[in-house]
Amino acid sequence: MSSTVEVVALDADDTLWHSEVYFERTERRFRELVARYVPDDEDVAARLVDVEHRNLERYGYGIKGFTLSMVEAAIEITEGAIGVEEIGQILAAGRTMLDHPVDVIDGVDETLTALTADGFRLLLVTKGDLHHQERKIAASGLSRHFERMEIVSEKDPATYRRVVASMGIGPDRFAMVGNSVRSDVLPVLEIGGHAVHVPYHVTWAHEHVDHDGAVDVLETIRDLPNWLAGR
Amino acid sequence: MSSTVEVVALDADDTLWHSEVYFERTERRFRELVARYVPDDEDVAARLVDVEHRNLERYGYGIKGFTLSMVEAAIEITEGAIGVEEIGQILAAGRTMLDHPVDVIDGVDETLTALTADGFRLLLVTKGDLHHQERKIAASGLSRHFERMEIVSEKDPATYRRVVASMGIGPDRFAMVGNSVRSDVLPVLEIGGHAVHVPYHVTWAHEHVDHDGAVDVLETIRDLPNWLAGR
Repeated sequence: MSSTVEVVALDADDTLWHSEVYFERTERRFRELVARYVPDDEDVAARLVDVEHRNLERYGYGIKGFTLSMVEAAIEITEGAIGVEEIGQILAAGRTMLDHPVDVIDGVDETLTALTADGFRLLLVTKGDLHHQERKIAASGLSRHFERMEIVSEKDPATYRRVVASMGIGPDRFAMVGNSVRSDVLPVLEIGGHAVHVPYHVTWAHEHVDHDGAVDVLETIRDLPNWLAGR
Repeated sequence: MSSTVEVVALDADDTLWHSEVYFERTERRFRELVARYVPDDEDVAARLVDVEHRNLERYGYGIKGFTLSMVEAAIEITEGAIGVEEIGQILAAGRTMLDHPVDVIDGVDETLTALTADGFRLLLVTKGDLHHQERKIAASGLSRHFERMEIVSEKDPATYRRVVASMGIGPDRFAMVGNSVRSDVLPVLEIGGHAVHVPYHVTWAHEHVDHDGAVDVLETIRDLPNWLAGR
């Protein structure tokens, strides 16, 4: 290998394994349950996003907060007309998400194997629910590739500064890889690190962000070793 | 100071600040909401504990999982007779818990100040919801005392071994302080560390554990410097 980068940090949800597809599936189920209680022109999805945003500072990220917001939104959108049986089905949908087996994205395992063989130190940096993320990391079979896992409550420049320092390197030796420009790329570039966007085919509304296009993008994680060689 | 101990690790909920009293208050509200739908001899509290235990592996610790379990239990215990308005009130009770100001226990701030003045390195080790614990730590005004905060999903011997190693010391230089014999004392003694129990006046059913009585107990955290001097 020949790269100035020493530590490669990777996001988890929708970078290493599928996650957003399960949120989408559950949200579809939510819309079906709520639909018969509201006028046809009611934008149920937008109302749910409103409730999620309202609760974000309180609940943080993850499925438990999402499920609580779905129950709250179902009562609010239907003005209390929804039945407790449907509320029970929303809870069950949340439990199903939490219990879903971890589904690793194609090419991830071989790419991580190649990177460690090339001498890169790998770090997992993920937002969200500590308990659930630990369960997913264990179930993914990928934990052997990682020197450490860091579960953070926000991905902002201050967090990345702390993470980079904890690896005993400067930001120029640090590269972050993830599916969110907002969380995985821009704050890392801001602190002087390297970062690359590997888009997932679904991106959560909250993660959309405008940027000037000056962001490196890979079509698949399989292109990561090449990209790193060019840093 | 004169102690073999170098690192003092402290639990957070019900050791540094009040927590269980808020769970108790919410549980009382839950029982009131459910009571009118069930026979007088129904043990609502026990049924809720059953649902919590059933979900513990899935939800982990914390208020969000507790709230989800309350909603699930309310529907189950009342066999669907409870109304969505009451479900909404259970959600609101959960939000109130999450938004409650942090109420530091008497004597904690002065004790932590004394310990750092004595040269001990302080570490916070707490179980539960990452996002909510970080918010509480920030709001408590106590974070300045701590070299580091470690939010873990389980307090077992393996976790403590990892935490002790991360401080660069052996277990004989490590002391843990907390209100749970099960989580804060026994696993630390098992790995060869020091540990002391500072009971809180309310203890969650799940944390009750039988032990042979050979556990050091302090009446108040104010006695901690003396106890450490004797290690």
